[in-house]
Amino acid sequence: MRVDGRPQRTIWLEPDGWAVGIIDQTRLPHDFVTVRLETVEQAAHAIRDMLVRGAPLIGATAAYGMALAMRSDPSNDTLATAHRLLLATRPTAVNLRWALEEMLAALGTLPPPQRAAAAYAKAAEICDQDVAICEAIGDHGLEVFRQVWQAKGGADRLNVLTHCNAGWLATVDWGTALAPVYKAHDAGLPVHVWVDETRPRNQGAGLTAWELQQHGVPHTVIVDNVGGHLMQRGLVDLCITGTDRTTANGDVCNKIGTYLKALAAHDNSVPFHVALPSPTIDWTLTGDPAAIPIEQRDAAEVTDIAGRTEDGRVETVRLTPAGSPAANYAFDVTPARLVSSLITERGSCPATRDGLAGLFPEQAAP
Amino acid sequence: MRVDGRPQRTIWLEPDGWAVGIIDQTRLPHDFVTVRLETVEQAAHAIRDMLVRGAPLIGATAAYGMALAMRSDPSNDTLATAHRLLLATRPTAVNLRWALEEMLAALGTLPPPQRAAAAYAKAAEICDQDVAICEAIGDHGLEVFRQVWQAKGGADRLNVLTHCNAGWLATVDWGTALAPVYKAHDAGLPVHVWVDETRPRNQGAGLTAWELQQHGVPHTVIVDNVGGHLMQRGLVDLCITGTDRTTANGDVCNKIGTYLKALAAHDNSVPFHVALPSPTIDWTLTGDPAAIPIEQRDAAEVTDIAGRTEDGRVETVRLTPAGSPAANYAFDVTPARLVSSLITERGSCPATRDGLAGLFPEQAAP
Repeated sequence: MRVDGRPQRTIWLEPDGWAVGIIDQTRLPHDFVTVRLETVEQAAHAIRDMLVRGAPLIGATAAYGMALAMRSDPSNDTLATAHRLLLATRPTAVNLRWALEEMLAALGTLPPPQRAAAAYAKAAEICDQDVAICEAIGDHGLEVFRQVWQAKGGADRLNVLTHCNAGWLATVDWGTALAPVYKAHDAGLPVHVWVDETRPRNQGAGLTAWELQQHGVPHTVIVDNVGGHLMQRGLVDLCITGTDRTTANGDVCNKIGTYLKALAAHDNSVPFHVALPSPTIDWTLTGDPAAIPIEQRDAAEVTDIAGRTEDGRVETVRLTPAGSPAANYAFDVTPARLVSSLITERGSCPATRDGLAGLFPEQAAP
Repeated sequence: MRVDGRPQRTIWLEPDGWAVGIIDQTRLPHDFVTVRLETVEQAAHAIRDMLVRGAPLIGATAAYGMALAMRSDPSNDTLATAHRLLLATRPTAVNLRWALEEMLAALGTLPPPQRAAAAYAKAAEICDQDVAICEAIGDHGLEVFRQVWQAKGGADRLNVLTHCNAGWLATVDWGTALAPVYKAHDAGLPVHVWVDETRPRNQGAGLTAWELQQHGVPHTVIVDNVGGHLMQRGLVDLCITGTDRTTANGDVCNKIGTYLKALAAHDNSVPFHVALPSPTIDWTLTGDPAAIPIEQRDAAEVTDIAGRTEDGRVETVRLTPAGSPAANYAFDVTPARLVSSLITERGSCPATRDGLAGLFPEQAAP
């Protein structure tokens, strides 16, 4: 997507053809800073300290980290060490493990002199594959958007509400939930996005708003409390979010607060769509949504917040009384009954076991 | 309620018997600072700049402002000027107008030499009346809490979720939604409160948490996105909120986000109660909840936030990209169908026209 008017991915090869460029997302939305990665250690640091985040982008960065390792030393030892180092950066990210296994499979059987070139090629392939998946989600989502817009009589504004950041910053390009937004905007649909702030980490106010602004998509930031009211007043035509994990029967585990918006959408007959690359479907989960473990993160993400001061510094301030404890649940589960459709790279389907099995018969086999 | 172990109201007569003491609530939760008001201008400033907030406390402060005016000059001119000055501070607050009319009615017909004493007496009466109403809400709410706790088999924790600040800081003492919490805690019920942060103004994280902490009530601050997940996992036994305006058929207009919690409570069979002093019932509203106008406030409340820096300063920081617009809807309407009961100073009732008419027959007459 566009930054300062120029096309931009979240990860790229530098002009010298070997170093890897990324955006330091910890500096957004206040500063757009790119970082040059020259070693596997730097790639590991970028993942661990969340300069890059979002499962697909983490996988892509790890893949290029392996390439950087192979460039400096293509030995079996380094292959193993680099794999171990990168895998330990964010132990729970599914795409990280997947991307590293792809790299090992591609490199392990090659003679060392061929490994560096093969690693760069495979990393580029992983990136391009992610872009293709996301763009396909965008195309299928665009059809959904277009239907809503036409049902509205081609009104002068198509109001979309989204939660968290499922944009191109979380992937290599396009994003998941935001891919249809970009497709719609680029196709001339008058899309306007209500951007949920998404406390406590503010990925909406910080990243989604920044993405949309840079690409020129009209949007308005709201606090997470507002969406229900907007839906009551007819100011939301559809909701779309991403998902961290989708069960085989269509329950959606996503950023905390997604469930509340889905309830409001259901109560006001507003369509609630979820965009997902198929690797986020957990085919082993088919039962009680309460069985999905929910990560609890550091309470400091609730009690403290960072922002830009009037004189331009980025400072962290405390919001709560010193003696008050806080709890920080990171995700919730939206039951499939509240989800209008799942939008995947193969098309959209009802949020049901049959819907998903229809699109992915090879996965859904018992 | 208690601050640093000592009983405290939000407004009081200073030991000299004429100046008025208040808490500067703009400094909470970071600093507990009291302010001495000696003139009607100072009282007006305290309301306008929100050193005091909450409809009942605004009314009480205005009443004492009239007393300060009468002490300095009990003439008809000053009576009219002080009334005008105070009424203009927060033009939409219902209690402000009501308290000032009470004062005018009590003072207007008196000879000037008697006005100062009468004004202090009337202001004290308005305060005591508010305390009595809130305490009665607390007593009736305690019964509701006790029933839930007993139905739970007298468990070791009664989990209550609340939104915004409807505590003693918004009234003269006790509060509305928090009055039953204090009553329950003081009666030995093992109450624990999930405190919604309540973006954008953070009255939960800033004021409710501070109140509860000072009084020693166990509580945990959460972001507004979390409540639905807690209810799904059985971690909330009941919800209770205040209300800014209640329609004659039981719809509740309250802080933005209340509706989302009521939806989640309904979806998970968690009782959702609303505590209210009867003056907040708008008997003229009986129809479409969408007819209630919703205040939109300054977008800066969304884009910027104040907190305490590590070195102790209170600083405001920006959260959003410079070019991203924000919208700030202050309230939403929770339909009566989602409200389990209304708890008033006369007892609790279903959130229906008949329920309210049963408690307030003199008001509900056609």
